[in-house]
Formats: sequence, C-alpha cells, structure tokens
Amino acid sequence: MRGLFITLEGTEGAGKSSMIPVVKRVLEESGRQVVCVREPGGTPIAEKIREILKTPADEKLNDKAELLLMYAARAQLVETVIRPTLAKGVDVISDRHDLSTIAYQGGGRKIPLSLIDKARQVALGDFHPDLTILMDIDPYVGMQRAKGRGALDRFEQEQMAFFERVRNTYLDCAKNDASIVVVNAALDLKTVTYQVESVVKGVLAHAHAVA
Amino acid sequence: MRGLFITLEGTEGAGKSSMIPVVKRVLEESGRQVVCVREPGGTPIAEKIREILKTPADEKLNDKAELLLMYAARAQLVETVIRPTLAKGVDVISDRHDLSTIAYQGGGRKIPLSLIDKARQVALGDFHPDLTILMDIDPYVGMQRAKGRGALDRFEQEQMAFFERVRNTYLDCAKNDASIVVVNAALDLKTVTYQVESVVKGVLAHAHAVA
Repeated sequence: MRGLFITLEGTEGAGKSSMIPVVKRVLEESGRQVVCVREPGGTPIAEKIREILKTPADEKLNDKAELLLMYAARAQLVETVIRPTLAKGVDVISDRHDLSTIAYQGGGRKIPLSLIDKARQVALGDFHPDLTILMDIDPYVGMQRAKGRGALDRFEQEQMAFFERVRNTYLDCAKNDASIVVVNAALDLKTVTYQVESVVKGVLAHAHAVA
Repeated sequence: MRGLFITLEGTEGAGKSSMIPVVKRVLEESGRQVVCVREPGGTPIAEKIREILKTPADEKLNDKAELLLMYAARAQLVETVIRPTLAKGVDVISDRHDLSTIAYQGGGRKIPLSLIDKARQVALGDFHPDLTILMDIDPYVGMQRAKGRGALDRFEQEQMAFFERVRNTYLDCAKNDASIVVVNAALDLKTVTYQVESVVKGVLAHAHAVA
C-alpha cells in the first residue's frame, strides 16, 4: 500500500516546525514508517538549488527564475525521494511543498497563478499531497513570535502587506481544496497539538477504511 | 532603436564557436555595438545554475528538473542582460538559446514538446530571437571533428542516435520558422564563413529597411 504524503504549510512563526514531530509521532504510533523532508531541498542537487534561492547576491534573482528554480528543486525531490518512498509504503512529511509556491510566489510576489500552474504541470503533473496542514496565524503575531515577541521595526512592518497576501492566498486555496486542513495556530501549544493530532488520526482512519 | 538578438545553434562539432566572432565582426563593421553571451549561464546566478547542470553528481538529475533549471537560467539571463541590452540599442549574440532546449531536451531526451512549451511560456513569454543561425552537420562528422577526426568508440556511436534526434528536431523547427536560417556546416571554413556573413548582412539590410 502506498504511503501517505503529508505537508505542513504556513507563514513565518506559525509553528510548522514544532508540529512536524507531532505528525511523525502519530504516524509512528500507528505502526507506520515515516521519512521527513523539507522544501526547497531534500536531495544534494535540490539543496544546491536551495542555496541559490537563499543566498543573498549582488544580482537580483528574477521572479520567474525564482519560480522555475523552486519547481526544479521540487521535481528533483519528488522524483528522487518522495515518489519512491511512498511507493515502498513509507509515509513522507514535508516542511513546505507546492502550496508555499502558490502562496509566496503567487500571493506574495504576484506572479499570475496561471503561470505558476504551467510550471507546476511541468514539474509535478497531477502529483499532490494526501493531506496539507495549514498552520494559520495573523502574520503580525507570527513575526512577533519568530523574533521573540518584540515590536516590529519599519522594514518588518512593511513586509506585513506581503505576508498578509501570502496568508490570504493560503486561506483561499484551503476553501477550494478538501485536502487542505486549516489549524488555528494562534491558540496555545497544547490545543494546537491536539488539533494536529486529530487531523492526522482522521486521515489515518480514512486511509484504513478505504484500504 | 532596439538591438538585434542573434543566436547560434547546432550539435557538437558544428563550429558554432568559430562563427560567433564572424557574426560579431559583421555587426561591428556595420557600426553596431555587440554583447556576446552563452547559455546556460551569462550572469553570476545563471552560471551557478550552469554548474548544477554541468557538474556530474552521484545523484541523477531528473529530466524535468533539468528542463526547469535550463529555463530558470534563461529567464535570469534574458531579464538581467539580454532585454536591457537590446533596449539600449545594443545587439546580443548568444551561443545557444531556446532552440537548444527544444532540440536536446525535446528531441534528444524525448520530453514532450507541449511540456517544454509550458516552461518556455513561464520563462520567456513571447520573447524570441530576431535571427537563429543553425549550424547543421551530420552528428557523426561533427563528433569526429570535435575529437580530432578519430574513429568513434562504442559509447560515442551509441550517442549518435541521441544526436541524430537532436539534429532532426533542429531541422524540423527550421522548416516552420522563417527566423531560423540553416547553414551547411559540413563545407569548408571559407564557404561556411561566407554563408554566415551573408545571412547577417541580409538581416541588417532588412533591419535598416524597416527602421
């Protein structure tokens, strides 16, 4: 039986990384094997692409080049790691995946979604996650969290419009896709953990039912 | 007035690189300024992408990732160098451009042309060269040239089917696109040079006529 592909999404400070071990634990307690990856990256070649994406350079990285690099890294990870792992019946958890590109490059950088969809078709065809957990939080609160509850400086406040667009695009996608579950990441850790556990258990119950 | 964008294409050993100075000379003799670039590469970021494409690794580079990296490098070069240079009225000569991807990734690696076209639309929109000089040669003769006229070993002979597909795709594209001019690269250097000079002079005459 094919493994489950579960992705975590959200803006900065939403607590994605603290929920990955929770998802992993629930899957493992259910007797499943789990591999964790992150995007962009996850293979030696994809990590080299990540370096180009993340390293500040004197030269501005063009928006379309950024989009194509994201999908190059994703195609490499999916074909080299994710698909083969799922085919062995092992679950894969990914810290970010395709929805990040739609939210950040589409919503954030305003690249038309029709263009993003073309790149997605080249890279992924009809491959998609079984479950996406969207950790939703007011980006202002998220960034305060990320920097330790301090007030935001002028540059950070200017970035807020960008992250608001990212958040709204995430939420719009969730409205139209039943495989995306929104978790209120502003609540206390115990409640958030409980929400995430419940979602994963729900998917497992369904996976057993259809198997 | 916008500069001219001229690209040289062809399989290995066709003599592209020896014709670039010829094209440059004809343009300069006509009083024009010229910038030469090569693909993939031509900017610091695009050269980093070239490194990923060219460096042999333990991990196999997935065909779709390769295609997307090619177009990422191309988008970066076109937006950072080629478009701004042309806008200043300076001509650009490129050693390889989009037609290489159609011929090598499409014809050679058999990636469907419909998929390549999607990636091209993301990276380039409707941007295309004013003139493409296709240096056409029997790939067997070309490879003998490239290695100094020696006989081909078994591995090189096996590669011939790949390069035959690349050549045929190049020629198919030329049939349907008046901006691609085929030069018989198997003839002696003097005759090939004369052909290339004539083609560039023809484009210059036309450019003056429509200006």
